Amino acid sequence: MLAFECDYNNGAHPALLQKLAETNDTPEPGYGEDRYSLSAAEKIRACCGAPDADVYFLAGGTQTNVVVLSAILAPFEGAVCAETGHIHVHEAGAPEYAGIKTLTLPSHAGKIDAKELEAFAERFYADEAHEHMVFPGAVYLSHPTEYGTLYTKAELTAIASVCRKYRMRLFLDGARLGYGLMSRNTDVSLCDIAALCDVFYIGGTKVGALCGEAVVFLNGTMPKHFANHVKKCGAMLAKGRLIGAQFDALFTGDLYFALGRQGIESAERLKAVLKEKGYRFFLETDTNQQFVILENRQMEALARSVRFSKWEPFDASHTVVRFATSWSTTDADIEALRAVL
Amino acid sequence: MLAFECDYNNGAHPALLQKLAETNDTPEPGYGEDRYSLSAAEKIRACCGAPDADVYFLAGGTQTNVVVLSAILAPFEGAVCAETGHIHVHEAGAPEYAGIKTLTLPSHAGKIDAKELEAFAERFYADEAHEHMVFPGAVYLSHPTEYGTLYTKAELTAIASVCRKYRMRLFLDGARLGYGLMSRNTDVSLCDIAALCDVFYIGGTKVGALCGEAVVFLNGTMPKHFANHVKKCGAMLAKGRLIGAQFDALFTGDLYFALGRQGIESAERLKAVLKEKGYRFFLETDTNQQFVILENRQMEALARSVRFSKWEPFDASHTVVRFATSWSTTDADIEALRAVL
Amino acid sequence: MLAFECDYNNGAHPALLQKLAETNDTPEPGYGEDRYSLSAAEKIRACCGAPDADVYFLAGGTQTNVVVLSAILAPFEGAVCAETGHIHVHEAGAPEYAGIKTLTLPSHAGKIDAKELEAFAERFYADEAHEHMVFPGAVYLSHPTEYGTLYTKAELTAIASVCRKYRMRLFLDGARLGYGLMSRNTDVSLCDIAALCDVFYIGGTKVGALCGEAVVFLNGTMPKHFANHVKKCGAMLAKGRLIGAQFDALFTGDLYFALGRQGIESAERLKAVLKEKGYRFFLETDTNQQFVILENRQMEALARSVRFSKWEPFDASHTVVRFATSWSTTDADIEALRAVL
Amino acid sequence: MLAFECDYNNGAHPALLQKLAETNDTPEPGYGEDRYSLSAAEKIRACCGAPDADVYFLAGGTQTNVVVLSAILAPFEGAVCAETGHIHVHEAGAPEYAGIKTLTLPSHAGKIDAKELEAFAERFYADEAHEHMVFPGAVYLSHPTEYGTLYTKAELTAIASVCRKYRMRLFLDGARLGYGLMSRNTDVSLCDIAALCDVFYIGGTKVGALCGEAVVFLNGTMPKHFANHVKKCGAMLAKGRLIGAQFDALFTGDLYFALGRQGIESAERLKAVLKEKGYRFFLETDTNQQFVILENRQMEALARSVRFSKWEPFDASHTVVRFATSWSTTDADIEALRAVL
Repeated sequence: MLAFECDYNNGAHPALLQKLAETNDTPEPGYGEDRYSLSAAEKIRACCGAPDADVYFLAGGTQTNVVVLSAILAPFEGAVCAETGHIHVHEAGAPEYAGIKTLTLPSHAGKIDAKELEAFAERFYADEAHEHMVFPGAVYLSHPTEYGTLYTKAELTAIASVCRKYRMRLFLDGARLGYGLMSRNTDVSLCDIAALCDVFYIGGTKVGALCGEAVVFLNGTMPKHFANHVKKCGAMLAKGRLIGAQFDALFTGDLYFALGRQGIESAERLKAVLKEKGYRFFLETDTNQQFVILENRQMEALARSVRFSKWEPFDASHTVVRFATSWSTTDADIEALRAVL
Repeated sequence: MLAFECDYNNGAHPALLQKLAETNDTPEPGYGEDRYSLSAAEKIRACCGAPDADVYFLAGGTQTNVVVLSAILAPFEGAVCAETGHIHVHEAGAPEYAGIKTLTLPSHAGKIDAKELEAFAERFYADEAHEHMVFPGAVYLSHPTEYGTLYTKAELTAIASVCRKYRMRLFLDGARLGYGLMSRNTDVSLCDIAALCDVFYIGGTKVGALCGEAVVFLNGTMPKHFANHVKKCGAMLAKGRLIGAQFDALFTGDLYFALGRQGIESAERLKAVLKEKGYRFFLETDTNQQFVILENRQMEALARSVRFSKWEPFDASHTVVRFATSWSTTDADIEALRAVL
Repeated sequence: MLAFECDYNNGAHPALLQKLAETNDTPEPGYGEDRYSLSAAEKIRACCGAPDADVYFLAGGTQTNVVVLSAILAPFEGAVCAETGHIHVHEAGAPEYAGIKTLTLPSHAGKIDAKELEAFAERFYADEAHEHMVFPGAVYLSHPTEYGTLYTKAELTAIASVCRKYRMRLFLDGARLGYGLMSRNTDVSLCDIAALCDVFYIGGTKVGALCGEAVVFLNGTMPKHFANHVKKCGAMLAKGRLIGAQFDALFTGDLYFALGRQGIESAERLKAVLKEKGYRFFLETDTNQQFVILENRQMEALARSVRFSKWEPFDASHTVVRFATSWSTTDADIEALRAVL
Repeated sequence: MLAFECDYNNGAHPALLQKLAETNDTPEPGYGEDRYSLSAAEKIRACCGAPDADVYFLAGGTQTNVVVLSAILAPFEGAVCAETGHIHVHEAGAPEYAGIKTLTLPSHAGKIDAKELEAFAERFYADEAHEHMVFPGAVYLSHPTEYGTLYTKAELTAIASVCRKYRMRLFLDGARLGYGLMSRNTDVSLCDIAALCDVFYIGGTKVGALCGEAVVFLNGTMPKHFANHVKKCGAMLAKGRLIGAQFDALFTGDLYFALGRQGIESAERLKAVLKEKGYRFFLETDTNQQFVILENRQMEALARSVRFSKWEPFDASHTVVRFATSWSTTDADIEALRAVL
C-alpha cells in the first residue's frame, strides 16, 4: 500500500535516531534543561538571526498552538484566524477548552488577507458594544497553510503591520515550515519570519522528527514562569532531551532544510506524474500538499492501492483528495504511484 | 557528576531505541492507530489479565493524570488524594486548569487509609450542604507513592471496596509501577491492580522509555470519543507509533519487569551503601526512592559531586534529600557513590 | 433624553415590585427552594403544557446561555448557532471560557435555515477527520433573534426534526420571548416551543423584571445535580426568591403576555412614526426592535435628544441604528419621539 | 416555624425596596453604568476613605469570589485560604472551574495565622521544585469567617505585611462584613480594611439587600477591561441598577451599619437565651453566628419548631448546629425562640 495520506506516517530521519542513540547514556536534567535542548535552542536562535529569542520545545502541533495562545493572550482576547485555520477546525475544541475564542476571517486558499484583517480590527474598535466582545489579541497564521499555500514576504509584512497597528501579536504555525522555506516559489526566509512575527514555531513532527515543535518567542513575548504554564497545560516532557536532541540534529548542518527540500522535490515529481496521468487539480501548490479532484468510484478504486486523504466533497459525484509528500518520500515511491495511476 | 536525583535522567533502554530504528521506515497511520500501538495494547491486556480493557498511550504523567481524570469525572465531581499526591502538589495546577478540584486526605508516608477514605465519603454524604460541595468522584492513588511506599493487596482491596460503596472510580498512577511490581516486599501484581482499579497507568517515562504512559481502562470507564478528548487536551501525538513501539518493546518478553527489577536491585545496593556509611534514613523504602537526612553543610559539600533531590527541610540545620535509582543505574554508579560518600 | 436604546433601561413592572414587597417579610429557604420559585415553576409548567418540565431560575441571559450549554453538552460537543448569534458575538467569550465552541451557520436576518443545518451536520459526519473536530451537540436559536426576527412554526419544526435526526439538543434563547409570542405575525405559541425544544428560557430581564430568566428543561435534559453546576458557575443566588417572586407575578393572570403585547403595540406605533417621517428601514420587524439607516451627521444630531443603538456601519456615510421599545414604552414616549424626529 | 438557619432567609430592608420603587421609572444605561451604581460607588469610596478605589457591583458571594480571584491572579498563581474557607469548601468547585487552585492553611476557628502564612510562603520559595507548583498569588480571608470569628487589626496588619513581603494580593470576603464591623469586640473599621487589603467586598445579600456585593479594588488591582471579564464570567447584570440602587440606599446615612448592629444586638439576645436555657456552646462568637452542641434526639425534636443549620457531627450522639441572626431578626423572634427552647 502506497502512503501519500500525510506527512507524518514515517518515523524519523536516521540522523535523529542516531543522535538519540549517541546521547542516550548521558544523565541529563529533565524538563528541557538538558544540554541538547540548550544547544538546539542556540542553533535555532542563530539560524533565525534572533540572538534574544526564547526557544522552547513542545511535543506536537495542537499542544503548541494552545500553550502559546494561552500564554500570550490576555483574558479579554481571542485569536484571529482563517476560517480554515487548524485551530478553528481540526483541534477538537482545544483552544476553547483553554478558554480561547477563534475569530474568523475569510480563507483565500487557506490564507487571510491583510486588508480584511485591518477592516476586521477597525470594525471591532468602532463597534460601541466591543467591550462585550472578544478582543482580537493575536493573529494566527499557518505557513504553509492547511491548503499548502504560502504567504509572500509582502503579504506577511502587511499583516505584521496591521498587527502592530492594532496591538495584536502575530503567531505563525510552522508545523510544515520546512516545506514552506524550501519551496521554489517563496521569498520568505526563516529570518524574515523571525523579524516579522512575535512568536512562531518550527515544526519537527512533519519534517523529520518523531515528535517536537520548536517555539521561538520574539520581542519578549514568552511570559514569566512559562515552564509552569507548560506544566499546567500537561505539555511538559520529563525527558525534554527527546525533543532537544532531535532538534539539535535537525539544526546541525542544514539537515532541516535538506529534509524540506526533499519533500518539495518529491512534490514536484508527484505533480508531474499527476499531470502526466491527466488528473484534474483542485489546488496545485508550491509545497508538499497537492489537491486533486477524483470521481467518486475512481477514488474508491484508487484507495485500494494508495492511501490519500479525502479532503472535502467537490460535487455530488466528485471529491477533493490530498496527496502529501514528505522528507521521507523517495523516487521509488513516486514511481510506484505512477505505476498505480 | 553522579546522578541520583531522579529516575528520568537517562534516555531509553537500548531495546526500545532498537525497536524505533527497526520500525522507522514503515508508513503507519497516525494518532495511535499504528500497528505497534495496537500490538502493545494487546500485550498489555494479556499481561493484565484484562482482555476487555481499553489501552491508550499518552506522553507523560501530568498529562495522563489530567486527561484521565477529566475523562472519568462528572462535572460535579473531584478527585480524592493524599495531601502529598502528585496531582495536588506538583502539577502546577494542571488538574484545576481542567476544572478538577483535589480533595485531600492525610498522607501516611504518601498513602491514604481506607478507613479515613470511608469516613470522608460518609461525612460528605451526611453533610446537609453537600450539594454545594465537590463530590468525591474518583480516588487517586500513586503506587509506588511519591515517597516510594507501596500499598499492600489488603490495603488496595479495602480502598477499592470503599470506592465501590460510594460510587467513586479508583485511579492508580503507576508512573513508577515497574519498581512497585518488582519490589521484594509487595504482594500486589499487575493483575491485582487491573482487577481492583477502574483505570490505572503503566509508567514508561521512568521505567526505560523516552516518554510514554500506558493507560488501562477497566470496567468500560473509557468514555465515548476519548480520542477527541485527548486531542482537546493537546495530548495527542501525530506519531503515536513513538510510544506504541516503545511499549511494544517493553512488553516483549519480560523487559518491563526486568527494568523494574534492575531499579530495585540498585536501590538495595544503594541502601546498603548508605547504611554502611552511617547515613540516617528519613524513610527507607522498598522501591527505588530512598530518603535520608543530611546536615545542611554536609549536603552542600556532597552536592558538588552527586546530584540528588532536596526533598524538604527536616529542621533548621538538616534537610531530607532523596536518592533515586532506576533501570539504568549500574553497579559502577553505586560503587562511584560509595567512593564519594 | 428619550430612551429607545434597549429594552432593559427601566426597572420592573409595578406588580413585580408589589410582589417583592408583599413577600418580603416571610422567611424562606435559599437557593431557589422558596415557595415563590416553586409556585412560579408550577405556573410556567402549566402555561407550557409541560407538566414534567424542570424549571430553574437564573439571573441573566449570558449566564443562562453558558450554564445551560455547559450542562447539556458532552465534552466532545459544541453549539451550532447563526454567525450573528448572541453567544457567538456578544458574550465576551463566556461560552469559550466554559470550554464551549460555537459552530456557525449563515445568518438570514438572524435566523438559521434547517436545510443549511442539515447539510452542516451531514458534512460533519461524512468528514473522515470528524473525530478531530467539535461535534455539533446542540443548536442555539434566539427567538426573537438579535435582529428582531421570528421563526415560523414550520421553520422551528424543521429545525427540531434535523436536531432529532443528528442527536443535537435544541436550545432556544427566549430573552425577548414575550415580544415574540405576542407579535401579530407569529404562529408560534409557548406550548409549541415547549413541544419542539429540549430546553429554552423565558426572558424576564427584558420583559418586565429587574432580573431573571426562567429555564425550562424538557425531555429530562436537566442533568443530575444541576444546582451544583449552577453554583459552580457562580450563578446561584442565595435569595432565589428575588427571581421566583418576580416570575410568580409575571405568570399570575396573563401579565407576562400583556407586557409582551405592550412592547409590540409600542413597536407598531414606532414603525408608523418612523415611516411617517420618511425614515429608511434596514429591517422592519414584527417584534420590538426596528432597524433604520441614518446618515451619519443626521445620526449625531438625533443622538443629542434620543438614545438608540448604533448597530453596524451601512456604508461610508450611513449607519444602521436600532430603536427598541419594551413593556415600559408609553404612548407619550412615542409622541415625544415623533416631536423630535 | 422560627427561622434561624441563616442570614439570607428574608427579603430586603424596606428602605431598599423603597429605593427600587422610587427609581423604577427612570431610564438608565445598563451594565452598571446607571446613576445609582455611580452614586453608590462614590458613597462607598468615601466611607472607605479610599477616593481612588474602583468599586464594582456583583450579584452574589461565590460569583464575586471567582470573578475577583480570576481577575487578580496570574496564570501561575492560586489562592491561599483557611482549610475551612468558603472558596475551598462550599462553592461546588467554582474556583477550580475557573482554573484556580486553593492552597490551604490550618484554620483557627476559621482564621489563618500570619506566622503560618509566612512559613508557607517561605517554604514555597525555598522548595527547589516550586516552579512545578502553584504559586501563592493571593490570600483569601473571610471577615467574619465562616465560624463567625473576627480578625483583630493586629492580625490583619500582620497578614497584610506577609502579603506585601511575598507579593501576594490580600483579598477579604466581606459577605457578612456589616456584622463584623458592628461587633462590640472588634477594633477593625471599614477604613482599616481598605487600607490593608488589595481588594475586598462589602456584602449586601446577607446584610439587608435582595442581592449584591460591592467589590472595592484598591492599589489599582482592578484589571483593564474588567467589565469584559465580568461578562465572560456570566456575572454581568443587564440592569445593574438593581444592585446599585440597593447599595445607594444601604450607604445613605448609616443604614448598612445600623443593619449590622441590629444583627449583632439580636445575636447578643440569642446568646443570652441560649445560656439561660443551659445550652452548651461549641463556639460563642462576637458576630451573628452562634454554634451550640445538641444531643441528636434533642436536635430532631427542636427541628420541628425551629430552623437552624446542622454544621458538623460533634461525636456519635451530638451535633454542632448553627443559629444565625440577621438585620431582620426581631425581639419577637428571640422571645418566640425562648418559648420554644
